[in-house]
Amino acid sequence: MAPTAHTLSQLAERFGLGLHGDGQTTIAGVGTLARAGAGELSFLANPRYRSELAHTQASAVVLRPGDAVASPVPCLIASDPYVAFARIAALFDPRQPPAAGTHASAVIDPSARIAADAHIGAFVSIGARSVVEAGAIVGAGCVIGEDCAIGAGSELVARVTLVTRVRIGQRVLIHPGAVLGADGFGLARDGGRWIKVPQLGGVVIGDDCEIGANTTIDRGALDDTVLEEDVRLDNQIQIAHNVRIGAHTAMAGCVGVAGSTRIGRNCLIAGAVGINGHIEICDNVVVHAAGVVLSSITEPGEYASGTLLQEHRAWRRNATRYKHLDELARKLAALAKESER
Amino acid sequence: MAPTAHTLSQLAERFGLGLHGDGQTTIAGVGTLARAGAGELSFLANPRYRSELAHTQASAVVLRPGDAVASPVPCLIASDPYVAFARIAALFDPRQPPAAGTHASAVIDPSARIAADAHIGAFVSIGARSVVEAGAIVGAGCVIGEDCAIGAGSELVARVTLVTRVRIGQRVLIHPGAVLGADGFGLARDGGRWIKVPQLGGVVIGDDCEIGANTTIDRGALDDTVLEEDVRLDNQIQIAHNVRIGAHTAMAGCVGVAGSTRIGRNCLIAGAVGINGHIEICDNVVVHAAGVVLSSITEPGEYASGTLLQEHRAWRRNATRYKHLDELARKLAALAKESER
Amino acid sequence: MAPTAHTLSQLAERFGLGLHGDGQTTIAGVGTLARAGAGELSFLANPRYRSELAHTQASAVVLRPGDAVASPVPCLIASDPYVAFARIAALFDPRQPPAAGTHASAVIDPSARIAADAHIGAFVSIGARSVVEAGAIVGAGCVIGEDCAIGAGSELVARVTLVTRVRIGQRVLIHPGAVLGADGFGLARDGGRWIKVPQLGGVVIGDDCEIGANTTIDRGALDDTVLEEDVRLDNQIQIAHNVRIGAHTAMAGCVGVAGSTRIGRNCLIAGAVGINGHIEICDNVVVHAAGVVLSSITEPGEYASGTLLQEHRAWRRNATRYKHLDELARKLAALAKESER
Repeated sequence: MAPTAHTLSQLAERFGLGLHGDGQTTIAGVGTLARAGAGELSFLANPRYRSELAHTQASAVVLRPGDAVASPVPCLIASDPYVAFARIAALFDPRQPPAAGTHASAVIDPSARIAADAHIGAFVSIGARSVVEAGAIVGAGCVIGEDCAIGAGSELVARVTLVTRVRIGQRVLIHPGAVLGADGFGLARDGGRWIKVPQLGGVVIGDDCEIGANTTIDRGALDDTVLEEDVRLDNQIQIAHNVRIGAHTAMAGCVGVAGSTRIGRNCLIAGAVGINGHIEICDNVVVHAAGVVLSSITEPGEYASGTLLQEHRAWRRNATRYKHLDELARKLAALAKESER
Repeated sequence: MAPTAHTLSQLAERFGLGLHGDGQTTIAGVGTLARAGAGELSFLANPRYRSELAHTQASAVVLRPGDAVASPVPCLIASDPYVAFARIAALFDPRQPPAAGTHASAVIDPSARIAADAHIGAFVSIGARSVVEAGAIVGAGCVIGEDCAIGAGSELVARVTLVTRVRIGQRVLIHPGAVLGADGFGLARDGGRWIKVPQLGGVVIGDDCEIGANTTIDRGALDDTVLEEDVRLDNQIQIAHNVRIGAHTAMAGCVGVAGSTRIGRNCLIAGAVGINGHIEICDNVVVHAAGVVLSSITEPGEYASGTLLQEHRAWRRNATRYKHLDELARKLAALAKESER
Repeated sequence: MAPTAHTLSQLAERFGLGLHGDGQTTIAGVGTLARAGAGELSFLANPRYRSELAHTQASAVVLRPGDAVASPVPCLIASDPYVAFARIAALFDPRQPPAAGTHASAVIDPSARIAADAHIGAFVSIGARSVVEAGAIVGAGCVIGEDCAIGAGSELVARVTLVTRVRIGQRVLIHPGAVLGADGFGLARDGGRWIKVPQLGGVVIGDDCEIGANTTIDRGALDDTVLEEDVRLDNQIQIAHNVRIGAHTAMAGCVGVAGSTRIGRNCLIAGAVGINGHIEICDNVVVHAAGVVLSSITEPGEYASGTLLQEHRAWRRNATRYKHLDELARKLAALAKESER
């Protein structure tokens, strides 16, 4: 079923936006400033792309009030054009939810409970005492272990694994390859060998969370590993056992969080950040890309670590000096003292 | 089947522990100091959590001799309370091993050999000449290629892939999403294009290893990639072709090891460490979180690299200076020389 | 079927190589200098392994002209021994392509089109309007969504997921656990909550690419995420939405590339490198291991960032000084100025 077309006037009214230019302009799709064509709506939010506005072939653009004058085509005016565009673009998403019902190949434990309007795809297995609530989608190849729950309206796209004792809230979206509820990495050293510390807790995912492809979230050792509501995790993130992440916090790809750490609400953790175990990060913290957080952060703000990229030979010389930075600082202090005499 | 309850006296005798307080105290579960309730045993090992002892609602606590006096409840006394707790907690793990037998949906090559008491789950495929030994568990959705072997008592939890020529020892535990035996990344540059170097070796995993969720271990190019016994790998670790990891070495999440590197025995590699290819790390080395190991390490000890997190603007200023650190050091040396005159 | 044996003379003629020593030497396999035995061919390319030449038990060795004199056994002479060995080793790869045909357990949408000589393995599901071209292999447990295409001669080894709108070129090799076409991480902040920005683009993979185990490549937000021809990605790499990677670029394991970044042709990105979003890297750039690329690179060359590993206590002192490096540089400048008076 093709998405319906909408006029600019209809869109302006529906989403409470301003309108400059011909309200009868018809929009049947969306695209970038550089690539959108006739019948498509684009947007300008990131100033980096402002130079593309003048040449756009889009039929209309969503933008901030101050940018309207520079637009060669009709505009929808929004204080936050990215939010407005996100809402409008959803009208043009061609994906249809899969039909309700359980695929003939699925293997479901008799003690599991599946809502009548849930969708269970091909090659899905669901273990004892697990529950799939109304309207939930469990895509092809997912493995749901024992004592798990998938809340109403949630979607496991495909090949997601919930190992055991994983409770997913409502409207949660989990991408392929994600593994929730695997054993935490709990080891004790006993006479030169490792013994495994039993991992008996679960995982709790709040409502409206999104979890990226191949991301892993381990079950707690005793208590649960917890994501509060509206936490957004990108791909290939590792969340160790007993971590707690506060509501509305977002993490970009390849972040790792070690065990028992608590992260506050409304934090933004950029890509490839590493976060130590047994620490606390307060609310409203931003950590920049590839930062390494070894100790607790108690003040909101923006944080970073690392060094800047440079030509390899120059880097090598500087990196060699860094190994003696303390000595260098001491020499400088001595020299300064001497010069004071 | 609910786990049985045990008295403190029984636990003390069974595990060779000291006992303070009422030996008839009944224990039916385990929990953290902060959350355990009536009938539950907790533990105090990490001094970070000592302040929680006074308020615990646990019925008993495992702790070191010196901490017993501060406990408001009966105690089991252990020189290593974490090890003692790990052993006791295993009594309360409710998981039952799955029943022996092969699920009707599994697809097994006629030349494969499966022990009568092994468990083969739903949607498992097993290729030519592969072997599953006594008591091994191959969970739902696993793909076992050709010429693989899974030793007695080992468990592939679910959705594990053994591509080809992967030999797993006894009592090995592999978590979902792990991929063992994929081709190593072997490329040769030929006239501006890449040609693939055939990857013909295998993977050998020693007894008692544990391999985390979504961890990848490539097959060797010619020889095998090897984990010796009791190696413990957390989630999302990447082990390239022809790496060898010594017995009892443990690695936390997100570590990457490049090709042909040899890592010694009893090493501890913290999270997000990167290890270069074609180097050697000797026994008993500790690398701290996010360290980057470019050259061989020939002396046991603790190593680190990187910089510390700080407020973003201050970091930016320092990082800019780092690009000229060598110049700065030269200036200082010149100044020192001058002041000597 | 065992691979056939070849004489050195036959190999020299077939691959246009020089020959020193007995051309009737029979080669039935390949191995490393250290491990190859009778009837096996080895190679010497990396000078690091030159010391192993004198003791090799191989029946012959491929090496550079200058190394022939040091060889105790017959040699094939090549200007690039690694390339020559790669070509020869392919003769000894025992893997047979799986038989054409679709496994009885596969679930294929009626609107999908599968070439008669393609191989579709056990537990594969293929969605509406997807296409598998001639000779392609879709291994066990793969999930192919809607509107995907897999080009002639390509292989998805096992358990690969193509979510939606993923178009794979010819002769592409994708290893287990890879996820292509999952939603990009597109979020807009709206009154303290996140709203999802619909991800409507696709993924385009050029001919002759290779994609490693558990690597993730997200679909574009509006346009496509693109790998040009002959791009080689190792394991556990994360490619965010709308990234474009130029032909013949190779990336080692654990690299992360943030959204909308463009990487040039013939680049070499070492392991664990992090690349920021919305930047450009020109052709012929090398980034060394664990480098962090925050800004665009406009000149070909070799780049690096980070610090060198050292003993932990010394590192700690230096890292503490780094937090005050700007202050230190200012003090030095002041001192230098003063000494000039």
